[in-house]
Amino acid sequence: MGLMEEMTELARRAKAASRELARLSADDKNRCLRAMADGLIAATPGLLAANAQDLEVGKSLGLTGAMMDRLALNTDRIAAMAQGLREVASLPEALGRVLDTRVRPNGLRLRKISTPIGVVVIIYESRPNVTADAASLCFKTGNATILRGGKEALHSNRLIAETLISSAKAVLPNFPEHAIQVVPTADREAIPALLSLTQYVDLCMPRGGEGLIRAVTECSKVPVIKHYKGVCHVYVHAAADLAMAEEIVFNAKCQRPSTCNAAETVLVDRAVAASFLPRMAARLSTKSVEFHADAESLPSIAKAIGGTSSVARAADAKDWETEYNNYILNVAVVDGVASAIHHIHQYGSGHSDAIVTADQTVAERFLAEVDSAAVYWNASTRFTDGGEYGMGAEIGISTDKVGARGPMGLDELCSYKWQGFGTGQVRP
Amino acid sequence: MGLMEEMTELARRAKAASRELARLSADDKNRCLRAMADGLIAATPGLLAANAQDLEVGKSLGLTGAMMDRLALNTDRIAAMAQGLREVASLPEALGRVLDTRVRPNGLRLRKISTPIGVVVIIYESRPNVTADAASLCFKTGNATILRGGKEALHSNRLIAETLISSAKAVLPNFPEHAIQVVPTADREAIPALLSLTQYVDLCMPRGGEGLIRAVTECSKVPVIKHYKGVCHVYVHAAADLAMAEEIVFNAKCQRPSTCNAAETVLVDRAVAASFLPRMAARLSTKSVEFHADAESLPSIAKAIGGTSSVARAADAKDWETEYNNYILNVAVVDGVASAIHHIHQYGSGHSDAIVTADQTVAERFLAEVDSAAVYWNASTRFTDGGEYGMGAEIGISTDKVGARGPMGLDELCSYKWQGFGTGQVRP
Repeated sequence: MGLMEEMTELARRAKAASRELARLSADDKNRCLRAMADGLIAATPGLLAANAQDLEVGKSLGLTGAMMDRLALNTDRIAAMAQGLREVASLPEALGRVLDTRVRPNGLRLRKISTPIGVVVIIYESRPNVTADAASLCFKTGNATILRGGKEALHSNRLIAETLISSAKAVLPNFPEHAIQVVPTADREAIPALLSLTQYVDLCMPRGGEGLIRAVTECSKVPVIKHYKGVCHVYVHAAADLAMAEEIVFNAKCQRPSTCNAAETVLVDRAVAASFLPRMAARLSTKSVEFHADAESLPSIAKAIGGTSSVARAADAKDWETEYNNYILNVAVVDGVASAIHHIHQYGSGHSDAIVTADQTVAERFLAEVDSAAVYWNASTRFTDGGEYGMGAEIGISTDKVGARGPMGLDELCSYKWQGFGTGQVRP
Repeated sequence: MGLMEEMTELARRAKAASRELARLSADDKNRCLRAMADGLIAATPGLLAANAQDLEVGKSLGLTGAMMDRLALNTDRIAAMAQGLREVASLPEALGRVLDTRVRPNGLRLRKISTPIGVVVIIYESRPNVTADAASLCFKTGNATILRGGKEALHSNRLIAETLISSAKAVLPNFPEHAIQVVPTADREAIPALLSLTQYVDLCMPRGGEGLIRAVTECSKVPVIKHYKGVCHVYVHAAADLAMAEEIVFNAKCQRPSTCNAAETVLVDRAVAASFLPRMAARLSTKSVEFHADAESLPSIAKAIGGTSSVARAADAKDWETEYNNYILNVAVVDGVASAIHHIHQYGSGHSDAIVTADQTVAERFLAEVDSAAVYWNASTRFTDGGEYGMGAEIGISTDKVGARGPMGLDELCSYKWQGFGTGQVRP
């Protein structure tokens, strides 16, 4: 069987499974999720053995220490995966929510309700826990998943998926076994093949570096929901409480710089630049932040960090659109909210941007005009997260404008349909 | 300037205009829409002259009579376009709707509000009224449009767009003139060029025949919302009121067969086939409907239409997935609701499907399991329409599952963003 035939068969089985999934009750699904959690714990020795094979592969591929760490499973990480499944089981049902109702003049009653999307392809890099996380969120929302992790994680991913399925089948014999499938080959051509199958695949969600996501988007014929990168801004307005601004900038940059909702650039209003830049730079120097600063801000930053482990240099054109994932911060001085918004639209990634100000009119303008998935007034950009939004779990963050935008929890893994209830209505 | 540069410039200007559009008040937009309506009426002589040029082109291209009719403008059609604009002006504002609010334990208030999508490319075939309809709905929702009609309608489309813009500018000098743009070339390569510009274009909506829509979807790197075709079903269940079923089938097939929500196939439960098929066939023969019937239904249909102008033949495999847009109906006998659902999933287009039954349990199963944008119980499939749903206007119908599904009115032309209102919250 050629690759295209193999992928077609995989996707066709996923679509058939999605029809069966749509019929499961919430209780049955939650029972399966709890059984899956127990199953993962029980499978710990086997999972560690499969993961050891992957770690060998990773070593032979020359993965970095950080990548090897992401690939590794241990009993704590397996327990955390299981705990994640139990939490998904305890979340409210997302299907069948009534999103709108209308009664038309002819008596036809219309109801808009949330439904599964259908078949979802998830493409991700090494972390094997994504297999359980993504599969469980999709399962809870009645979606069949086709999972494609990194080739270095294939043994772990396959065994995780097999464990989820066998555990679910043990408590629910009619659990559709193709509801969760791992792409069985590491062939790179499997991705374009799968993503050409518009008759079976309804959505693709790539998670990982910008290169992976761009390659997936480029080849896909099915809808893709993603964010390429997070170039997030904090704008310190002239009317900002500077102590608050300092805390927010420090948090947005330093609390966890590797995340997509961490800030990469601070825009400081000229009116407060002289007072704010030194205190900001001094505070960030406690974390050895490296500054890439525009000509106007560079001198006072350089002065403020003298004698610390921080360094500063002139920002170059590329810096403004770079996601560092590290203790590096761009700084620019701007003239008022319009310039700040202009900078964000020019260089930002439409992810998360914040303003710090006591001026409500200016804040409202910023919140209205900045065209990003999440915009904050007097709060850190780090809040763009399913857990922080009370979604209970998150399968990813979207900067797209069609379909889900911002953090994606269970509700964002749903589509909808219209149901019409008539008594014989026909159209005149 | 090469084609790619030209399209990039067009899209870049549209994105800039979309930023300005997002700032216009509802009142300003409605004032512009009414001025556009007046402007179209005032421009009638010029529009007729431009359309006459297009009709010459159409003639030289050998367009059919039906296509020439669709291309033609007259004073009534121009008046109808203007009336459409006035109706859009009178619809409620779709932006800024609060879709969700949450207050988090840390006091952060979150609000999910509707926003423009951004830049929308509309690709359509000859009817020039789409230019005004689509541009007005997109304008009302703060979206910049790039319009690509048929090459035979280029003169009409350009003048309609120019008239809309100049009329709006006359009452609102800061109306962004690139909010509505017509692709200035008939070069076919303009479409893939435009739809590769993911940094500027947010959505493409193709409207027209399946071939056009497949070609657009195939080449696009930006999200596409569409329906390929409408293969809609009416399922007459064993517990159907057969008089009601006859009316619904007659309406779904014959009230306007050229539409995408007209029925192509009737599925009749074996239990009522002997009683229903003859009356259905006799009724449809009053409109000379041609029947493509399965082996089981063909004899009784053939018998019932004897002596009428209807004809019947055995259905072939291709028929079940064909949208006829005409007085042709497929008929199959099925065994219960599960077979009906299976047939619909196998051959349907996920558009609109109806069940006729007095059995609530069966109806609920059909409404839950049939995976289509709109599903009806005891009502005609013909109701899938923005006007019939009370949306006031419709820019199209989607069978996609990511983004809008079913009829698309103003609300469906919106995206959303999250706004966070803090008092200095940072993430611990």
